[in-house]
Amino acid sequence: MAESTVDHSWDVIVIGAGPVGENAADRARKAGLTVAIVEKHLVGGECSFYACSPSKALLRPVLVTHASQRVQGSEGARVDRDGVLARRDSWIDNLSDKGAVGWLDSAGIDLVRGTARLAGERRVEVEGRVYEARHAVIVATGTAPLVPDLPGLRDANPWTNRDATTSPRVPERLVVLGGGPVACELAVVFAAIGSEVTIVEQEDRLLGRMERFAAEAVAAGLREQGVRIRTGAAATKVTRPGQGGEVTVDLDNGESVVADEILVAVGRVPNTADLGLDSVGVATDEKGYLPVTERMEVKGAVGDEPWLYAVGDVNGIALLTHMGKYQGRACGDLVGARATGRPVDPASMTPWAEGLGTVQVVWTDPEVAATGLTEEQARERGIRVRVVEVPMDSAAGSGLQAEGYQGRARMVVDEDKGTMVGATLVGQDVAELVHPATVAIVGEVPLRTLWHAVPAFPSMSEIWLRLLEEYGI
Amino acid sequence: MAESTVDHSWDVIVIGAGPVGENAADRARKAGLTVAIVEKHLVGGECSFYACSPSKALLRPVLVTHASQRVQGSEGARVDRDGVLARRDSWIDNLSDKGAVGWLDSAGIDLVRGTARLAGERRVEVEGRVYEARHAVIVATGTAPLVPDLPGLRDANPWTNRDATTSPRVPERLVVLGGGPVACELAVVFAAIGSEVTIVEQEDRLLGRMERFAAEAVAAGLREQGVRIRTGAAATKVTRPGQGGEVTVDLDNGESVVADEILVAVGRVPNTADLGLDSVGVATDEKGYLPVTERMEVKGAVGDEPWLYAVGDVNGIALLTHMGKYQGRACGDLVGARATGRPVDPASMTPWAEGLGTVQVVWTDPEVAATGLTEEQARERGIRVRVVEVPMDSAAGSGLQAEGYQGRARMVVDEDKGTMVGATLVGQDVAELVHPATVAIVGEVPLRTLWHAVPAFPSMSEIWLRLLEEYGI
Repeated sequence: MAESTVDHSWDVIVIGAGPVGENAADRARKAGLTVAIVEKHLVGGECSFYACSPSKALLRPVLVTHASQRVQGSEGARVDRDGVLARRDSWIDNLSDKGAVGWLDSAGIDLVRGTARLAGERRVEVEGRVYEARHAVIVATGTAPLVPDLPGLRDANPWTNRDATTSPRVPERLVVLGGGPVACELAVVFAAIGSEVTIVEQEDRLLGRMERFAAEAVAAGLREQGVRIRTGAAATKVTRPGQGGEVTVDLDNGESVVADEILVAVGRVPNTADLGLDSVGVATDEKGYLPVTERMEVKGAVGDEPWLYAVGDVNGIALLTHMGKYQGRACGDLVGARATGRPVDPASMTPWAEGLGTVQVVWTDPEVAATGLTEEQARERGIRVRVVEVPMDSAAGSGLQAEGYQGRARMVVDEDKGTMVGATLVGQDVAELVHPATVAIVGEVPLRTLWHAVPAFPSMSEIWLRLLEEYGI
Repeated sequence: MAESTVDHSWDVIVIGAGPVGENAADRARKAGLTVAIVEKHLVGGECSFYACSPSKALLRPVLVTHASQRVQGSEGARVDRDGVLARRDSWIDNLSDKGAVGWLDSAGIDLVRGTARLAGERRVEVEGRVYEARHAVIVATGTAPLVPDLPGLRDANPWTNRDATTSPRVPERLVVLGGGPVACELAVVFAAIGSEVTIVEQEDRLLGRMERFAAEAVAAGLREQGVRIRTGAAATKVTRPGQGGEVTVDLDNGESVVADEILVAVGRVPNTADLGLDSVGVATDEKGYLPVTERMEVKGAVGDEPWLYAVGDVNGIALLTHMGKYQGRACGDLVGARATGRPVDPASMTPWAEGLGTVQVVWTDPEVAATGLTEEQARERGIRVRVVEVPMDSAAGSGLQAEGYQGRARMVVDEDKGTMVGATLVGQDVAELVHPATVAIVGEVPLRTLWHAVPAFPSMSEIWLRLLEEYGI
């Protein structure tokens, strides 16, 4: 394709303006490159409008109200449904991306609105126009909700996370298919603002990728908040006779759940279907994800030198905003170095810490915060593992945080290295307690050194001290 | 002194059953030694009954109520004065130390009630009885409130922290002498439960040992909560004509403050006055603290081998419960190793991390959490310093935590080593955010590695990412 047929050229074109694409674009721009970002819907992406941000905007009033209700001397707190919804509306700016567009402007990144398709090496087509990326194309198209092939489900016009996080309505009864973080978090929200919520999860437990003890604590919390949980029960059929009317979910154990709305939160599918991958010789894996090298280069792309990268959900490595942003930063730096002829520093330009496991927080009540490897994951890797556990209230700070505080902390230790390789906390307000473990894991700080990192008394962070004591240091 | 004159012998005698003494005793006991702990007042000590524990028990309902009031969708929270006081009473178990005594029992530590005095090498006298410590005596007597020689002050029968943290009464007007953490925290409590509070501090600022920007944010918060602050004003005279009646504090700027109660929180004095130091050849420093080696051995003690140790406030190194407990653990381990002939491991049996600065949290509103060195302390040590600052709400998690969230974070970097040497955060709910920095400082994790410790989105812990970005990584 000759230069003359190109409508415009940039050094870098990023496809998808979610947080991941924004981070990649920003780092490439900071390296001195010209950068365009292509977005077909809202700048800011799924995370800002339909996932993490609105869900935490909805959850925070619920969680702080519960927290307040658990402390003697703090009286009268209650969840105000309309206030919760108004807060959410304000956080998603009523689905306007003006703020995010303003940020792109200030960062010097050009915005192209429309649907992007790859059109050969270093070429991107958007709504009939052809753009050239002189150095790199970075794909950050993310994922969409998976709506499984369950009889009657699609015809029932189910909610996905997008509907649940933006709905002005609160259904009287809500059935949630799925038991992962999204399902659990939204169950907390809707239970608190007036829905009768039922979770249907085919596994025998919630939060299947996290430590079982944490999942059990979340299930107990949900039940206390009035949520019904049907685990070990697969939905076999969905029936919804009238548009927007009552919906019935039949389960394989013979039961059925009747609700006024159904939310599907059983997984994600990568946005790669209409990306023009054929034009660059790339095939997705069987699930539709883009296979990448550890430098986020898309495997198999045509061309002599790396120019096509994929970061965030779309490469399937870790479906978490922060891990995608991490990849985006590393990738933007790498592209910047390669384009400007500066040395490539693998220590900073590859997201190597992914290999150590990822941090994940579930803002349910109780919260779960996990980092690194679970016990099971560590054993699967052949690590000589020792696990220690303590109740959260073994740290005085937890007991001071709420009357009758309940929770548990687990540390997974690599006995050969004498370092922490994973940790999981469950309990009220544990979300912000886990980052020290991530630092210790990534920094490979020996437990014997960690012993000298003294937490303040009486903070909840003393739980790290309790775990080390329990370990026997 | 012959063996026959000894009433009882243990391997180790600990003087003072606060958290510091308890930790030292526990570690020595765990090493297999017999241990007695001597306490003249309450097992659990100042911290459990008159300081950290009751003050946080009082503060938590206030802070969580304020937090709830700042979140749209959480309505109606208010501070309930009687509930706050009842919660405090419950935390201090109405000044019964039954719980702490039970813990001693379960840990296998013998309790001796009474006032202890050293009576020669390895001898401790308690209420006329003489006890032998075959291996070590560990002094953990802590500090008492300093009541300065201010005309009229002692006659005014002022409150100290002990009275303020245990009072069943809430004075209509409370004047607080001092502007440190205790003064600021108690001002938050009493302002919230109905007192008109005035702080009088002779320095030109509050929290003199912390970064100035944090102190200013706390002062602004206190003012919003109705506290009057008189900084740069020294009290010259206190007048209180009637027992428990109105009290007037004259200031050197000509003003005076009238209140119904006066709280003195201007510092501490070590409990060494009546300790029998002469009998073992030890002299305190000019402030009364016991001078110690880095292994917590009291300098100058008689005898050929180390046997006298001092941990916690009483050695003056760091007047913080957690640092004292840290010293207590290291010292108990060292004594255990020495007594049982196991090798002494300086890496675990000295509290070496003290040299890196200490973590401190002030549970005001906003909270302050600081660790390592302030900018000034780092410069004084000749470190080539770079300081970076970001607003707390640069992390989306902060904005989600409270409407209009305000706060600030500062990181102090050693430019030669490429590591963090200090950090200070100020803002709502920052208390639990600082421990990652302590881990990074103690573990000497390079900033370039820290960059790969990814915090969860949208947690407030992303502030560490923002600081690294601001630094330019």
